[in-house]
Amino acid sequence: MARRRSVNMADLARRAGVSIASVSRALSNAPGVSDETRQRIRGLCAEMGYTVAPDASRLKRGKTDRVAVVVRTLDIWFYSSMLQGIMSSLRHAELDVLLYQVETEEERRRFFEDLPARRQVDALIVVAFPISDSEMRRLDLMDVAVVIAGGALGDYPHVRIDDVLAARQAVNHLVLAGHERIAMLNAGSDWTLQYAPPAERRRGFTSAMHDAGLPIAPELMVEVPWGPTGGADGMDRLLSIDPPPTAVLAFSDEVAIGAMRSLRRAAVPVPAGMSLIGIDDHPMAELTDLTTVHQPVHEQGERAGRLVLDMLTGAPVDVTHLTLPTNLVIRSTTAPPRVSARPASAQ
Amino acid sequence: MARRRSVNMADLARRAGVSIASVSRALSNAPGVSDETRQRIRGLCAEMGYTVAPDASRLKRGKTDRVAVVVRTLDIWFYSSMLQGIMSSLRHAELDVLLYQVETEEERRRFFEDLPARRQVDALIVVAFPISDSEMRRLDLMDVAVVIAGGALGDYPHVRIDDVLAARQAVNHLVLAGHERIAMLNAGSDWTLQYAPPAERRRGFTSAMHDAGLPIAPELMVEVPWGPTGGADGMDRLLSIDPPPTAVLAFSDEVAIGAMRSLRRAAVPVPAGMSLIGIDDHPMAELTDLTTVHQPVHEQGERAGRLVLDMLTGAPVDVTHLTLPTNLVIRSTTAPPRVSARPASAQ
Repeated sequence: MARRRSVNMADLARRAGVSIASVSRALSNAPGVSDETRQRIRGLCAEMGYTVAPDASRLKRGKTDRVAVVVRTLDIWFYSSMLQGIMSSLRHAELDVLLYQVETEEERRRFFEDLPARRQVDALIVVAFPISDSEMRRLDLMDVAVVIAGGALGDYPHVRIDDVLAARQAVNHLVLAGHERIAMLNAGSDWTLQYAPPAERRRGFTSAMHDAGLPIAPELMVEVPWGPTGGADGMDRLLSIDPPPTAVLAFSDEVAIGAMRSLRRAAVPVPAGMSLIGIDDHPMAELTDLTTVHQPVHEQGERAGRLVLDMLTGAPVDVTHLTLPTNLVIRSTTAPPRVSARPASAQ
Repeated sequence: MARRRSVNMADLARRAGVSIASVSRALSNAPGVSDETRQRIRGLCAEMGYTVAPDASRLKRGKTDRVAVVVRTLDIWFYSSMLQGIMSSLRHAELDVLLYQVETEEERRRFFEDLPARRQVDALIVVAFPISDSEMRRLDLMDVAVVIAGGALGDYPHVRIDDVLAARQAVNHLVLAGHERIAMLNAGSDWTLQYAPPAERRRGFTSAMHDAGLPIAPELMVEVPWGPTGGADGMDRLLSIDPPPTAVLAFSDEVAIGAMRSLRRAAVPVPAGMSLIGIDDHPMAELTDLTTVHQPVHEQGERAGRLVLDMLTGAPVDVTHLTLPTNLVIRSTTAPPRVSARPASAQ
């Protein structure tokens, strides 16, 4: 540590155009900075005559033996499944898991404000919610390992899926089946701070439509509150459009299952009258025969937990930015469009 | 504390026929003993000339400011909803929540073995799993508040539903609709230590059938592993019986939803060909129009959390053994039996 202090990190950070925390991480070989940044900073060090102690490295296990897991909610499958995955890695490691829930933006702000002062932990896993730049700066002030599960934030190590690709896989399946008039029921967040997956899935939708040479009808891009009720309401709106779409991509399986209820109540047969596809592969997707794009949620949590363990024990961490694959699961809610359902005016 | 020591608790415990821990709880006004026991012990104290300090009482808040929550699993709606409820009480109280998962019996044993030595907490909430007598004795050795959420164990404070009543409510609904040949898909636990709800729901089923003067056909009492797959397999077995039942009570909504898939695949119309009722009121029950018996899971967790807070802050705790009401939610999977579906030989 004494030798690291001889490096003027503020000076280095200014010259490298990165945060002091990134400099600190680069010099200590901690994950959380890209290889390019690390090499640039080490290059600058050499240039500026700084000596970097080769073993002033790694986070050492066991200051508190506690890991904090922060979630927005718990009683939604995605989050509880992620937590189960995280626990599967951490619970055999003699680490205590502190669970924090930040449901509102105010709670999130307070959590990060209190964090350096009150919460003594070795590591922090943030599960699938956005944090602000100033909150990231507070995080950087702490000497803790940070891992993002189910998303990406700044330069922190993360485990996630490619949300653009997941939406593209869904749209391509509908396009291959012959659909042209395809709608999207997208679900945003109620926070002002933007959460990336809805934007990325929308981007996947529009890029796949564009690649297929299909027009995107603005009235078919419907934003709904997350969850089955949002899906049901959104589908009601889509059914009131003339002509309605012949296929719908829902942000998640829960949104899709809500949409299915509206279709059932409107006596629209699935898939004959409407194709429907979700994203997740929620356990209920199998039970309702919903076609979907599978994402490995438990595995994202498990890998995030393992990443934390590796960072805390000083094991070599090769990959700190991990994107797990998604794949199409064809069940029985998608089929080619019924020709009669698409009047000539539809295009 | 000094005055409490003047009481020979072992002597008192022997004479009262209860554990030393119960004596300690009775004398300190801590929850966890019945009013009868408390009065009997206080009566014995007076009789034996012991002086009980009136304020050598109550657990004091804040030795560690940590509460442990122990669950068997996380990615099942009942448990994650319970946890969400517990968090809703605890997370605003400046308490840290330590989360422990004990999936196997071996993990449970190890958890309770390590508990006094390693885990420093003020309180412990056990979510809906059984613990052994020796594990209870280890718990009693610790100076912590213990609350059972979603069940009952020994004499500990608890928040739960009446599982016998929940099953009776379901069976009575089927009986009132005219069903006589009623099956039960019951789901046990894979632990050797018995978990009460399956036994209690079975008792509710048999007592309601008995009260209605209906025979219980042993082949219609089917034990399945918990979950949708268990429900699907169990329904397959019921459909292979001649004559099949006209109505089925499933242990939980998830078991019922699995059973529904088997009915759909066997082209048995619901409710015309088979009535189906669950217990829980899982969010998916509404989406699949499943008739069920609602239990307030979030509220059980929230009340358990509040009970812990009251015990830790020394607030007066009036009711330490809380049973929340369940109620029938009629949707569209139950109806009177089709006469033709019940040949005369069915009785």
